[in-house]
Amino acid sequence: MADDFPRAGLLVFPELHTVPAAGGTPEHLRAAAERLEGPWVEAMSGIARRHGIHLLPGSFCEAGPDGELFNTAVMFGPDGDILGTYRKIFPWRPSEPFTPGGAFTVVDVEGVRIGLSICYDAWFPEHSRQLGWLGADVIVNIVHTTTCDRTAEVVLAQANAITNQVYVVSVNSAGPEGVGRSLIVDPEGIVRTAAPAAERLMLTDVLDPAACRRVRRFGTSGLNRLWSQFTPADHPLTLPAYNGQIEPERWSINQKGD
Amino acid sequence: MADDFPRAGLLVFPELHTVPAAGGTPEHLRAAAERLEGPWVEAMSGIARRHGIHLLPGSFCEAGPDGELFNTAVMFGPDGDILGTYRKIFPWRPSEPFTPGGAFTVVDVEGVRIGLSICYDAWFPEHSRQLGWLGADVIVNIVHTTTCDRTAEVVLAQANAITNQVYVVSVNSAGPEGVGRSLIVDPEGIVRTAAPAAERLMLTDVLDPAACRRVRRFGTSGLNRLWSQFTPADHPLTLPAYNGQIEPERWSINQKGD
Repeated sequence: MADDFPRAGLLVFPELHTVPAAGGTPEHLRAAAERLEGPWVEAMSGIARRHGIHLLPGSFCEAGPDGELFNTAVMFGPDGDILGTYRKIFPWRPSEPFTPGGAFTVVDVEGVRIGLSICYDAWFPEHSRQLGWLGADVIVNIVHTTTCDRTAEVVLAQANAITNQVYVVSVNSAGPEGVGRSLIVDPEGIVRTAAPAAERLMLTDVLDPAACRRVRRFGTSGLNRLWSQFTPADHPLTLPAYNGQIEPERWSINQKGD
Repeated sequence: MADDFPRAGLLVFPELHTVPAAGGTPEHLRAAAERLEGPWVEAMSGIARRHGIHLLPGSFCEAGPDGELFNTAVMFGPDGDILGTYRKIFPWRPSEPFTPGGAFTVVDVEGVRIGLSICYDAWFPEHSRQLGWLGADVIVNIVHTTTCDRTAEVVLAQANAITNQVYVVSVNSAGPEGVGRSLIVDPEGIVRTAAPAAERLMLTDVLDPAACRRVRRFGTSGLNRLWSQFTPADHPLTLPAYNGQIEPERWSINQKGD
């Protein structure tokens, strides 16, 4: 039965990990921009292919078609193919010069649905919620935090896991520039493993998407089935901040048809 | 200048605090239902008036006009007047028999805008977000948690404070039935005070709505200005789970015109 266990074998690096301009000014970031069809993607694709791995090598400064500057994460497969791209939706303003992306992105990797998230995205619960709703088993939040608010991000990683019943993998830059404290949280909000501080290290873990299904079915702590909250008899819940609503019949994580 | 400091002087008790049926079956809760114009409200109003206090005496089992059973919080002023009522939007299903309310509610108490939240509401970040958007300075979450998932609720109280830059006051029942761990979190997510366990005690604190404005203006840790995220040049952000969107020009907590 061991062969039935999905093995994504994904290697993840922090936001802008390979971009020297990450520690520089907005002008440095603009100067580092290149197209998706460019040397950064080519180099990373080659690494993935050479090692035969799934690779999320952080993000890079993408020059968009209309002069935009995006902070773009790219997921590569073991053949070096691009499996998905994601443009950061919530740039850290006003410090960052990035143009916001507009598309929530999930990528399927060997039976595991991975939601892509970059740094400050985690501070807006709408972001993780859309990824959960799109069926993510794991939210991978790549981060380049050099500031003391990493403490808050550790709380948010747990909260985003709890409210969406997904794994959250928060991968921050190590020292001397980043403050580290990467962590992996399970679908009930329990911290599975964490870097205590800014030292360079690799967190390893085996995540099981069946755990998400178990938690959603039987409840967090056997108690809370957040994705089964609504019944057909319920009225839609108006959410005025979004000019939107929760419609009972659409409140489901089974967006992948399983 | 001390007189300029808003003093709400609000006394808060846990969810269903005065309702003996709180620990019983759905049938017990239904049997305890009464109209808003009934003896429970009359009694609580009398207590507020007699002591000349603002009072949020937990919630009660409200018999709705169409046979609904609501879990309804009522805020009283020092004259015994009803300042606001709120029907729990996210009942703890399937255990609770309550009909969901549909209206996010804020109440102004002597210059402090208080958002009302009941127990499981805190598990759905949409709830706190609407209250923040409606201008809440403080989210008061009254709770009757008797289970081990209080650990997760402590995380969520912090996260809801961080993401909305509001105070969160989470007031849980004490032992022997409740597991306690009430806490007060500031608009940067810092726990100001907390009950360590289930013992009976009263948490006291002075909350300053100016702190919310400071944090929103200068940022969490001087870094993150969540309510100033969007610019007029940004496109609306589509949120598919809600059939809604974040419209840049509507992303503001200044819903009270200050």
